Amino acid sequence: MTRADISLEALLSCPVPSGRPEHVLLGHGSGGRLSAELLREVFLPAFDDPVLRALEDQATLTLPDGARFAMTTDSFVVKPIFFPGGDIGKLAICGTVNDLAVGGAVPQFIAAAFILEEGLPLSELRRVVASMRQTCSDAGVALVTGDTKVVDRGKGDRIFITTTGVGSVPAGRSLSIANARAGDYVMVSGTMGDHGVAVMSVREGLDFETSLTSDTAPLNHLAEALIGACPAIRCMRDPTRGGLATTLNELAEASRVGIEIDEAKVPVRPEVQGACEILGLDPLYVANEGKLVAVVPESGIQAALEAARRHPSGADAAVIGRVVDEHRGAVVVRTRIGGSRRLATLEGELLPRIC
Amino acid sequence: MTRADISLEALLSCPVPSGRPEHVLLGHGSGGRLSAELLREVFLPAFDDPVLRALEDQATLTLPDGARFAMTTDSFVVKPIFFPGGDIGKLAICGTVNDLAVGGAVPQFIAAAFILEEGLPLSELRRVVASMRQTCSDAGVALVTGDTKVVDRGKGDRIFITTTGVGSVPAGRSLSIANARAGDYVMVSGTMGDHGVAVMSVREGLDFETSLTSDTAPLNHLAEALIGACPAIRCMRDPTRGGLATTLNELAEASRVGIEIDEAKVPVRPEVQGACEILGLDPLYVANEGKLVAVVPESGIQAALEAARRHPSGADAAVIGRVVDEHRGAVVVRTRIGGSRRLATLEGELLPRIC
Repeated sequence: MTRADISLEALLSCPVPSGRPEHVLLGHGSGGRLSAELLREVFLPAFDDPVLRALEDQATLTLPDGARFAMTTDSFVVKPIFFPGGDIGKLAICGTVNDLAVGGAVPQFIAAAFILEEGLPLSELRRVVASMRQTCSDAGVALVTGDTKVVDRGKGDRIFITTTGVGSVPAGRSLSIANARAGDYVMVSGTMGDHGVAVMSVREGLDFETSLTSDTAPLNHLAEALIGACPAIRCMRDPTRGGLATTLNELAEASRVGIEIDEAKVPVRPEVQGACEILGLDPLYVANEGKLVAVVPESGIQAALEAARRHPSGADAAVIGRVVDEHRGAVVVRTRIGGSRRLATLEGELLPRIC
Repeated sequence: MTRADISLEALLSCPVPSGRPEHVLLGHGSGGRLSAELLREVFLPAFDDPVLRALEDQATLTLPDGARFAMTTDSFVVKPIFFPGGDIGKLAICGTVNDLAVGGAVPQFIAAAFILEEGLPLSELRRVVASMRQTCSDAGVALVTGDTKVVDRGKGDRIFITTTGVGSVPAGRSLSIANARAGDYVMVSGTMGDHGVAVMSVREGLDFETSLTSDTAPLNHLAEALIGACPAIRCMRDPTRGGLATTLNELAEASRVGIEIDEAKVPVRPEVQGACEILGLDPLYVANEGKLVAVVPESGIQAALEAARRHPSGADAAVIGRVVDEHRGAVVVRTRIGGSRRLATLEGELLPRIC
């Protein structure tokens, strides 16, 4: 049994029923297979829009006067709202900035909508808002409009934040997860699993002796550096819910290619690896909030890797695999002991409310 | 004692403490004085952005290539999620379309983020999504991107939806709540209080014999008709949370003018008036979701009123008062019995979770 099998068996607090569920399950928010089903069965049939159907993390749109821009939205429900290395406010800004940035857009404006639970200490709200301000400043974006709603005690959970971002789209850019081609390299900008494991470490009942910190960070400057070093870059994506494994599967499906990665080359911090072993988690399925995956043609991979490593957020960047013609739509991982196995999309819910 | 005094005394489920609250109160989501305090004391100091500080319901922004657009965001937490005349999905689309439209923008694109409570029947989600699709179609907007998160049972309340809208801004338009001038007329596009009273009617423990229906409707076509009939229109706004009274106070403050309205001229459906009397509510403080208030210069008021009445959503449009030089920043209402009283901003929370 592989490590991935153990983690999925051990941790599925919400097992996937064999038939079609008739109620919302925690797994519908996992970013994995159930999320994809909900999108395909409920949302896409209702809103049969070509932009929505492209399933990118952001929509690229054109105003009547011809101006192009990108737009993305995400709700954040992370629990607890403060965790090592970040909080829900920093996460909400980074998540939205990063969805724009990995699509090749330049994040400009953020709208933030708050759903507050009655009784929340205002001091906590102030802390979250201060963190959002700092993160906006770090990323170079402006928070320009917002909204606040309050729900009665027991009908929310302290703070939920929905951030929507608008970015400009430089002329000629068209990064898309449908662009990967056989022969391309797959690189990641740093270590995998830091965010999910850090949040787990402060969840009720789970404590670690080592210090684990979320990687939550804005990626727009790193993304620009990569595009600058290698304008032919095919696509980038931030492996959040569902982790690297789910992101690679989305890439393989959208581009109708196979992907092969080498487990030993995927950077994972020793303390994250240790925590994952204790918990029976596979770091390839754990969420990141300050890392990107890039697919880069052979001619540009050296320049892209060097550009990433020169950047503070990309010091641990590594090439982890290649795009291949075989097993289209699927991801295969070469394990440390020399075997190989299919790396599937996340099933069910591994870590609920991680973002 | 005026009717407004009775309603405020009788209904404040969440009284306003005399000192500064240190925790989030339901009143912080009212759209009234506590909401304004939260904005002024927590959000504005953190995000000292000139666009945010303008306190319009939408932000008008410029991309690096010079393209202008408008952006607005709102979370919807209405309870119950289905009510006479609408549901949370229709409300979420209309609320965002209307915030853009009353600012003079032409709504184009919508992003929708869902926070679902574990256990929600998928049939209810499908109904809400179908209603969103229908409303997008009615308003002529495209839903282009979205997100879904799931929270554990008891940490949410069925469905919360955050919608963010982007609209184009036709050249030369600059409607603003700071534009009202003495001598202008104040008009409303129809009856006041329908939405809030309809939602109350289905809330647990409150039943009415008459049929009350929410006015939830997209206002963008009506807004365009008004601007077309009277290009010199100063500003429009949709009187949602806090009702007409709160909206007029925001206008008076932003424009540094006085506003005088005639209570007898404010259209209110007899069944809404009756329900308000039973409940001790003042319809001037009750939320609307398909009505707008417009401030129109004298030269254009006849054309604007006729244009509104020709439109299905504006059949009951009426001039209700004028902008004056006196009592700047304040709203005064001439009552039916010939007296006059100050119409203050909503204090505390009149109707929690009405949108």
